[in-house]
Amino acid sequence: MDSEIKAALEKLFAADSELYQSRGFQRRIGWGNKPALVNIDLANAWTQKGNAFTCEGMDEAIPAVQEVLTAFRAKGLPIIFTTTAYDMIDGDHSDMGLWGKKIPAEVLRAGSEAVQIDARLERRDDEMLIVKKQASAFRGTNLTSFLNACGVDTIVVTGATASACVRATVEDAIADGFRPIVVRECIADRIAGAVEWNLYDIDAKFGDVEALETVLEHMRRNH
Amino acid sequence: MDSEIKAALEKLFAADSELYQSRGFQRRIGWGNKPALVNIDLANAWTQKGNAFTCEGMDEAIPAVQEVLTAFRAKGLPIIFTTTAYDMIDGDHSDMGLWGKKIPAEVLRAGSEAVQIDARLERRDDEMLIVKKQASAFRGTNLTSFLNACGVDTIVVTGATASACVRATVEDAIADGFRPIVVRECIADRIAGAVEWNLYDIDAKFGDVEALETVLEHMRRNH
Amino acid sequence: MDSEIKAALEKLFAADSELYQSRGFQRRIGWGNKPALVNIDLANAWTQKGNAFTCEGMDEAIPAVQEVLTAFRAKGLPIIFTTTAYDMIDGDHSDMGLWGKKIPAEVLRAGSEAVQIDARLERRDDEMLIVKKQASAFRGTNLTSFLNACGVDTIVVTGATASACVRATVEDAIADGFRPIVVRECIADRIAGAVEWNLYDIDAKFGDVEALETVLEHMRRNH
Amino acid sequence: MDSEIKAALEKLFAADSELYQSRGFQRRIGWGNKPALVNIDLANAWTQKGNAFTCEGMDEAIPAVQEVLTAFRAKGLPIIFTTTAYDMIDGDHSDMGLWGKKIPAEVLRAGSEAVQIDARLERRDDEMLIVKKQASAFRGTNLTSFLNACGVDTIVVTGATASACVRATVEDAIADGFRPIVVRECIADRIAGAVEWNLYDIDAKFGDVEALETVLEHMRRNH
Repeated sequence: MDSEIKAALEKLFAADSELYQSRGFQRRIGWGNKPALVNIDLANAWTQKGNAFTCEGMDEAIPAVQEVLTAFRAKGLPIIFTTTAYDMIDGDHSDMGLWGKKIPAEVLRAGSEAVQIDARLERRDDEMLIVKKQASAFRGTNLTSFLNACGVDTIVVTGATASACVRATVEDAIADGFRPIVVRECIADRIAGAVEWNLYDIDAKFGDVEALETVLEHMRRNH
Repeated sequence: MDSEIKAALEKLFAADSELYQSRGFQRRIGWGNKPALVNIDLANAWTQKGNAFTCEGMDEAIPAVQEVLTAFRAKGLPIIFTTTAYDMIDGDHSDMGLWGKKIPAEVLRAGSEAVQIDARLERRDDEMLIVKKQASAFRGTNLTSFLNACGVDTIVVTGATASACVRATVEDAIADGFRPIVVRECIADRIAGAVEWNLYDIDAKFGDVEALETVLEHMRRNH
Repeated sequence: MDSEIKAALEKLFAADSELYQSRGFQRRIGWGNKPALVNIDLANAWTQKGNAFTCEGMDEAIPAVQEVLTAFRAKGLPIIFTTTAYDMIDGDHSDMGLWGKKIPAEVLRAGSEAVQIDARLERRDDEMLIVKKQASAFRGTNLTSFLNACGVDTIVVTGATASACVRATVEDAIADGFRPIVVRECIADRIAGAVEWNLYDIDAKFGDVEALETVLEHMRRNH
Repeated sequence: MDSEIKAALEKLFAADSELYQSRGFQRRIGWGNKPALVNIDLANAWTQKGNAFTCEGMDEAIPAVQEVLTAFRAKGLPIIFTTTAYDMIDGDHSDMGLWGKKIPAEVLRAGSEAVQIDARLERRDDEMLIVKKQASAFRGTNLTSFLNACGVDTIVVTGATASACVRATVEDAIADGFRPIVVRECIADRIAGAVEWNLYDIDAKFGDVEALETVLEHMRRNH
């Protein structure tokens, strides 16, 4: 994003925050007692070059996610990875539902390399893999069931994209009664600006957007 | 079920139906415009001998399901199979959720022979496979999304068990706005009486329980 | 229910339980850390004479529910009441959804005396009232959101009917990760046998059916 | 929004659209066979001055919504209004769930003038009113059930705010298999820029954003 546009966005957000503060928005939801880590669509289609879904900024996001993963693994807390993949892409009755009518979901074939979790994250067998079909990690999946059975009340969110799967997941999390904490350095998107404006909206209304170091510090002191 | 108990149940149902009829229950929901076939948990753990989940009466149910499958395949209508299977059975954070605290869900290991769809049903690649974690085929799955995207308004239900997954699926179907038609000869359970009392409740309140021949006749005349 | 039929049912359940025990069903889910009380459809249409929805046995169930209410109120734990009522009964676009095609939902008019919570239960303003449209207290309502935000992990269930709203609620509770405890003396239905066979299925697979005294004793010792 | 910032945003969107077009995003989902009109939170708290939730641009949005309402009423198609309101605001167990921890939900008291649908829209008794507790009109409500029972496959969306309830509703609509059509002139928000960036994201990935005249023209020619 060029510096002129970046400056314009910052000016806009500053004015908007003034209004929000005077109206009582942008509150802090804070941490509950037991967090889980939810890594959204950190599969090759999003993290590696050459796919319709490839995102910008993954070389910075992946190491940040690795740090959060290490913190959660050290405490034995639940870790979830999602990917988006389809078994029935051709024909009249597709498990893409309607989403293929808006985005190129047809390149996300179940079983292909593209939809595997990025090897740099070294997913372990006891870390849940959710193969979702829609944007939110909650919609059409057993995530609420799993989190409740584990006694989780907070989800730390990383991944891609800010403008679709991350945002929809955060919206559903707070709606279902889970506190969402989004790690700023761990979020990516493919178009310029989308990380900024979506994290802005999320922090105002749906979940706390926190710096990586703040999240790591919380994990060191608690749990 | 011995004949004495069977007679007692029939007497009970007859008296109950008299009350229901006088009160306006046991209505017919009927068929909509586009049905899908939903086959519940017709995987080896339920259909074959020797598993904790093995059901009675599968030698009669499977051929009946084959007839319904043939009718749906002939018309190119959507067909769904479900199975119940778990990836994380050991440890503190299981994808069984709480269900393993009531039933022996731990024998349903993902990837095992037990959770594969019974080979006699010859599932095809364009017939959706839902690997669910809870009783209902709707809860925590993309079934509503899929059915709506396909324009389906009616589901024909077969499978096992009457007292858990079939019933929960039918209850959710009508709640989400799909007309459930349950094929009597295609439903099984592992304990005596459970098919009878659950189909009785379903027909009174949640979906139409119909004879195989009635369903096949409808399929021949329509769609 | 006449004594002959009752004996036949008991014989059937005993044989079924032998199979269930040998297979690992009928486990105890037990209590979690924070229970909520969920009273299903204890509104006049179910609890008083003269409605299509009137249930049997309410004169015994209501005092039992009062005892559980007293126990929860003493500890300041969350209490929820549900009723089923419709705003748009006539015309093509009804909020009954499809349910009016199976049961006489049209008599449950929102605002009418029939759908008010029975006055004997003295619902207080800080006890949540859910006006649901379908059987389950979870489906199409904010119950999961509320329970999670309150930190609840267990629901104690009372009310009517065993064969519809109570059962569907219990099935959804365990599916969403809440431990269901059903209080036997607090459950009613309108047809003979339905309390027995539905509590039998629930206890085998979905939640613990416990005696009133056991529940009260637990409440005295804990929370 | 000042013209300099507006120009910067437009430049940003133009560059982003170039990438999206080359990758196969920003497809048209189009209309299905039967649309419903879903008016999000057009209640006084959002449409009138002096509330924490008051939005900008309502004097332009309300007449545009009136035109869409007239078109739907003329064809007898289903119309839904939502509002957001809470019955239990004080105390430990609130029906705000967690949302009051991010936004000033405590001003949205059920029964107050603030949460009534704006009188200029003249809601009729046969137009469904959903009192929701969270952002999405689908989450924790019977909207999917209602739309399916009505045979609806498309929802036309108006209302506020772009950055919360409208967007979450559109995301859930496509996820559940309903085609979302958002009427640009009918959407409002309280902070500058939020309509622009949220409609941009929606049109790229979740639903078609269309001009009022295009929607009215479609309604004249069809249904």
